[in-house]
Amino acid sequence: MSSFLPPGSTLGILGGGQLGRYMAIAAQQRGYRVAVLDPEPDAPAHQVAHRAITAPYDDPEALEQLASLCQAVTFEFENVPAASLEPFARRGVAIRPGPRALAVCQDRIAEKTLVGSCGIETAPWRPIRSGNDLGPALAALGGSGILKTARSGYDGKGQARVESLAAAREAHARFGSVDCVLEGIVPFALECSVLAARDIHGVCATHPVCENAHSRHILDVTICPARVGEASAAAMRERTARIAEELGYVGHLAVEFFVLPDGAVVVNEIAPRPHNSGHLTLDAADNSQFEQHVRCVLGWPVAPYGQTAPAAAMANLLGDGWMAGEPRWEALTGIPEVRLHLYGKAQARPGRKMGHLTATAESVERAETLVRSARQALFG
Amino acid sequence: MSSFLPPGSTLGILGGGQLGRYMAIAAQQRGYRVAVLDPEPDAPAHQVAHRAITAPYDDPEALEQLASLCQAVTFEFENVPAASLEPFARRGVAIRPGPRALAVCQDRIAEKTLVGSCGIETAPWRPIRSGNDLGPALAALGGSGILKTARSGYDGKGQARVESLAAAREAHARFGSVDCVLEGIVPFALECSVLAARDIHGVCATHPVCENAHSRHILDVTICPARVGEASAAAMRERTARIAEELGYVGHLAVEFFVLPDGAVVVNEIAPRPHNSGHLTLDAADNSQFEQHVRCVLGWPVAPYGQTAPAAAMANLLGDGWMAGEPRWEALTGIPEVRLHLYGKAQARPGRKMGHLTATAESVERAETLVRSARQALFG
Repeated sequence: MSSFLPPGSTLGILGGGQLGRYMAIAAQQRGYRVAVLDPEPDAPAHQVAHRAITAPYDDPEALEQLASLCQAVTFEFENVPAASLEPFARRGVAIRPGPRALAVCQDRIAEKTLVGSCGIETAPWRPIRSGNDLGPALAALGGSGILKTARSGYDGKGQARVESLAAAREAHARFGSVDCVLEGIVPFALECSVLAARDIHGVCATHPVCENAHSRHILDVTICPARVGEASAAAMRERTARIAEELGYVGHLAVEFFVLPDGAVVVNEIAPRPHNSGHLTLDAADNSQFEQHVRCVLGWPVAPYGQTAPAAAMANLLGDGWMAGEPRWEALTGIPEVRLHLYGKAQARPGRKMGHLTATAESVERAETLVRSARQALFG
Repeated sequence: MSSFLPPGSTLGILGGGQLGRYMAIAAQQRGYRVAVLDPEPDAPAHQVAHRAITAPYDDPEALEQLASLCQAVTFEFENVPAASLEPFARRGVAIRPGPRALAVCQDRIAEKTLVGSCGIETAPWRPIRSGNDLGPALAALGGSGILKTARSGYDGKGQARVESLAAAREAHARFGSVDCVLEGIVPFALECSVLAARDIHGVCATHPVCENAHSRHILDVTICPARVGEASAAAMRERTARIAEELGYVGHLAVEFFVLPDGAVVVNEIAPRPHNSGHLTLDAADNSQFEQHVRCVLGWPVAPYGQTAPAAAMANLLGDGWMAGEPRWEALTGIPEVRLHLYGKAQARPGRKMGHLTATAESVERAETLVRSARQALFG
């Protein structure tokens, strides 16, 4: 199987949410066909793909079908069971990012171990293999921390802040006593992310650093460039490229960082895929994170990854905004600088990512004000 | 029927080629559903639409079906029979651009008459209602001209340069003696186009002027900004906005101009839709021509329409390049600044638009060199 897949080839995507949808559109615009596997019949990516396979991610027949259709396969989430990759490997389908990168990034213990082995700082942490590890770990981290399941957490799910051994035991039991990590609490000044794409030749492009604000553990607003010193920004970009190199990564990834008050940076976590904070690249970059991802997956070289405006901002639209009724769409018409993205999800639920708003401007403050005030107008 | 159609509404598109495909993608990204009517089962827009109706454009049942699905309807070509609009009008579907604009732009006599009535210069021309008009028209235009059918011409089809009455008669007979115009030959220095979008409130945004090079009557390469003086550029943008106003236009249109050696500008023709020369807006504008079109059609205000790079270029990829075999796709991997767009057409034919290349750069010369050399590498 050649590393470069010419237009007309079919890209398989496991996962048909908004990330899969944008990947599909990017691949289609370059002349590729797209087949998506997702359990939901009207999943966002199913609506636009050439072929939609509606089945659970571990359905052997569906996986065989997808593997028979495509020459390369990629993922919109990292929690892909290793067994699901087997039909693709057997048929010689290019799996990008590769199984090792996925395996590392779906396990916080493996991920932090790898980051540490590169000499890159993380928050202090301890593996929790059993309840017996909780006491020593808590003591080592100064008596408090955040307990996180090693696998399958996202948007704050599978996380609990604990200030005592009793609380740690309670949370650990609540998580089903699965493998966890206990992370020390980092008094960070800022949360940032670095978007990066690495191609089959090992060339890695990083985007200017994004600054992220969360609300209830879910990304709320991203601005770019981040308001950090040049040294911190350069350190984050360099560490991201080093991690991608160490993983032998092919595709787009994002590394989340904490920036400390003195400007030092520590890795929070790795997302081996396009990332919510990268949505502003759809409207403000030489190439979007989805274009970069499919380029790399299909064997093209990474492309320029600069920002095309002095500043950009993105605000998520969560399902909560729909709970009081249909958003006031017409209110957006007064703000033509702000661009609306919706993912085609029929059902709004609290915490569900329904879409986002982006704006570009001369300053991050202005761009942020634009998207925040537009969202305010929408949801009242 | 409200003028503003909220996300979740369905946009109908008559025509499923590349223009319809990009319109569909733009609408889908804003949360709209899309239904496309096109006679080809695997038409480029059918591949991405929520609903694909495969039927001739004048199929009454198919038109009724499309009209029953959508709240607004638009077109990727101007040659829509008036009768095809009737099911939409009857159901109160918003038809944008409106029937009058379509009627004017599908008839060169009506179009040139309207432009002239605004006090805007065209090439000298005469209507040819019958063969008897040819002699006087030719005499009035100095003995030579270009005979064009009044309706249904595109990419040089239905056009003939004539230098004598005998040649004019022969061409007119060959065109079936239909209504024509005879245009005087304009010794132009440059061909340009102005992309513009006008919203339901009458606000019109124009893009910086594009400069176009044709090959065998088909657009070959576009660069932007055009290498014309400021006064010429301003005149073209002003005339375009005036024409849009006069047509009561809603949506995106393009006006093609000839620039004379002294900088004077004359209108060549109007395309009431996104235009091939506007493809570079996909990668180099605040908003693409397709985004502007669907915004206006769905009742949103026009958005900023500046170019985000100092210079941009676009080169068409015609089916001719496929005749000697599959293009050398891998050759493009050495030029990551150049972006490939393909429309998903399975069959290549000479003259068929299969895709295009775009690049941005510091100068139009550099951008043009990038897309031309990339195309050269592709087709050898």
